[in-house]
Amino acid sequence: MKKVNIGIVGATGLVGQTFIKVLEEYNIPVNILKLFASKKSLGKKLTFNKKEFYVEVLKEGCFNGLDFVLFSAGSKVSERWAPIAEKTGAYVIDNSSFWRMNEDCSLIVPEINMSDYKNKRKIISNPNCSTIQAVLPLKPLDEYYGINRIIFATYQSVSGSGQKGIDDYNNTKKGLRPKFYPYDIQKTCIPHIDSFLDNGYTKEEMKMANETKKILHNPNIKIASTCVRVPILFAHGVLIHIELNKKVESIEEVKNVIKKQSGIVLLDEPKKSIYPISTAAVGTDKVYVGRIRFDLSKTNGIILYCVADNVRKGAASNAIQILEKIIKENNK
Amino acid sequence: MKKVNIGIVGATGLVGQTFIKVLEEYNIPVNILKLFASKKSLGKKLTFNKKEFYVEVLKEGCFNGLDFVLFSAGSKVSERWAPIAEKTGAYVIDNSSFWRMNEDCSLIVPEINMSDYKNKRKIISNPNCSTIQAVLPLKPLDEYYGINRIIFATYQSVSGSGQKGIDDYNNTKKGLRPKFYPYDIQKTCIPHIDSFLDNGYTKEEMKMANETKKILHNPNIKIASTCVRVPILFAHGVLIHIELNKKVESIEEVKNVIKKQSGIVLLDEPKKSIYPISTAAVGTDKVYVGRIRFDLSKTNGIILYCVADNVRKGAASNAIQILEKIIKENNK
Repeated sequence: MKKVNIGIVGATGLVGQTFIKVLEEYNIPVNILKLFASKKSLGKKLTFNKKEFYVEVLKEGCFNGLDFVLFSAGSKVSERWAPIAEKTGAYVIDNSSFWRMNEDCSLIVPEINMSDYKNKRKIISNPNCSTIQAVLPLKPLDEYYGINRIIFATYQSVSGSGQKGIDDYNNTKKGLRPKFYPYDIQKTCIPHIDSFLDNGYTKEEMKMANETKKILHNPNIKIASTCVRVPILFAHGVLIHIELNKKVESIEEVKNVIKKQSGIVLLDEPKKSIYPISTAAVGTDKVYVGRIRFDLSKTNGIILYCVADNVRKGAASNAIQILEKIIKENNK
Repeated sequence: MKKVNIGIVGATGLVGQTFIKVLEEYNIPVNILKLFASKKSLGKKLTFNKKEFYVEVLKEGCFNGLDFVLFSAGSKVSERWAPIAEKTGAYVIDNSSFWRMNEDCSLIVPEINMSDYKNKRKIISNPNCSTIQAVLPLKPLDEYYGINRIIFATYQSVSGSGQKGIDDYNNTKKGLRPKFYPYDIQKTCIPHIDSFLDNGYTKEEMKMANETKKILHNPNIKIASTCVRVPILFAHGVLIHIELNKKVESIEEVKNVIKKQSGIVLLDEPKKSIYPISTAAVGTDKVYVGRIRFDLSKTNGIILYCVADNVRKGAASNAIQILEKIIKENNK
C-alpha cells in the first residue's frame, strides 16, 4: 500500500490522541505525520510508532503535501481550516459538526455509505458519536423492512465531552465542585447535551435526527431524540424504538437481519445477563446490539439497545476507517 | 386526630427506615409502633420521635391491635403475612409487587386514585417506584387529551435495589468487584432491572406498563418500557413519549395541564439549564417534570422527562401519604 501524508488538527485532544493510537493499530502506512494543536499546546510532543512528534500551530501552507487532514478541534477551527486543507488537494475527515449537513459534503459511516465520499467536495464529516452507533443496526432494518419512525433515548458517557468531561467526572468523584457540567455528574444524570434550541430540543438531539436521515439516504423517516449524560467514563448507550413498514415475522428474523451488518456484534441472551454494556465495548470498534424485542405498544415496532466506544467507533476509529477505505480504493 | 397503631415489616431496610423517618416528618399521630424484621436483625434498635424501639420477628398474633401494617420486606413476606395483617382488621400498605395486580386490592398514588382504597380487600399496594413518578404527569394528560400510547425509558438509581444496590455502588467506587449487580455499575449502565421474561422484557418493564394502566383506570393505553440502571445513588429519571388522542395546541397548554396536578413541580426552562435533576428531587416528595416538547416524529405526540426520589415518593412517602389520607377520611 502506498504511504500517505497525514495531518491531525487537535492532536492533543482526547479524540486527536485516539486518532494517533488507531492509526498505529490499523497499520496505516504513514509517510509524513504532522500534528497540529493550539498555541497553548506548543512544546508538547506526542508519540506515533515509537517516534516523537512536536505539535505545530496552524498557519498558511501548513497542509501542503498532505493527503489527509483529520480534524477534531471544534466547529470554528473546521469551518475556517477545512476548506484550506481541501484546497491543497487533501481529503478532510472532520469530527466537528460544522460540515455534516452541507449537501456538497459527505457524512460517512464506512460500513453503511462509504461510496458517498465521492461527493462534490473532499470534506468528509464524521457523524455525531451516538448517531454512528445507532445507524449500524438501523441500516439493515431500513433495507429489509423500511423504517417509518425512530425514537432515540441516549445514555452518553462523559468522554463524549472530551477531556473536559473526563476531568469533571474525576474531580467531582473526589468531591470537588463541577466546573464543566452545569450539575454534579456524580449525583445526577443530566438531560442536556450541547445547547438548547427554540423547539425545546438540544443541538445534539437534532443532530441525531438529521444525520441519521442523511446517512440512511432516507429523508422521510420521522425521528425524535432525547440525549442524556450519565456518570460513565466511556461508551454510550442508545435505546432505539423503530417502527417498520413491513410485517415483522419474528424477533429471530430481526436478529438475522441485524447480525448480517458488518461492524455489529449481537449481545442478546438477556436471561444469561448478556446484553450490551460499556465494559464490553470500550477499546473496540464494534457496535454491540441487544435487548431486541417487539415493541408491545406498536404493531411492527421493535426495540433495541446498543452500546459502542464513543471515542473510538463514535469518533476516531470511524475516521481512520474512512481514511483506510479511501487509501485502499485509490490503490486498486 | 386520633392516634393510630402502626406496624412496619422490613423496618431495618432502606425503605423501612424511611417509613419511620417520613412518619415523623408528617407528624402522623402514632400510639403504638411495632417494628418487624428478620431474625438476623434481632437485637437492633431504631429511633422514632427520639424513642428507641427494638425490632421483633413476625409471629402469630404479632399484628393484633394494629390499625396499619406497612410492608417492605419483599414479595414472599407480603404474600404470606399481608393477609394475616388484613385479617386482624388492619390496613396493609405493601411496597412489594405481590398484590399490585390483584383485582380485589388497590394500587394507589394518593394524588391520582386515592378513592380506590375502598376496594374489596384492605391490602393496598404501593406501585413500582418508576411508575409512581410517571403517572403523576400522565394522569392530567389522560384526562385532558386522552392517551393512546406511552413509551418509557428509565434512568434508575442504585437505591432502587435497596441497601444492596447502595453497597455495590459504594464498594465498586472503591475499586472492589461487584457482588450484587451482574456488572460494575461504576463502569456501565445496566439495561436489566428485575428478572427477564420470555417476551424479552424484564418484570420491572412489565410492571411499569401494567401498573400505569391500573392506576389510570385505562386498560386501553398501549405501553412499552425499557428500564436501565445508572450509577446514581438516589432519584430515578423517567423519559416519557406520550401519544395523545386530541389535538395539542401548544406546549404552553401542555404545561398548564400538567402543572395543575398536585405533587408536581415544573422545572422547565432548559436554556437556563433548568430541567429535572436528582439533586433537586432527593429528600423531597415531589415529582419534577421538564424537557416538555413536541415529539417531532408524531402528530399530537409530546415528550417529557421526570425525576423523583425513588426511596421517598417512589416508595416510603407514597405509602405514608396513603396512610395519612385514610386516617383523615376516617376522622371526618
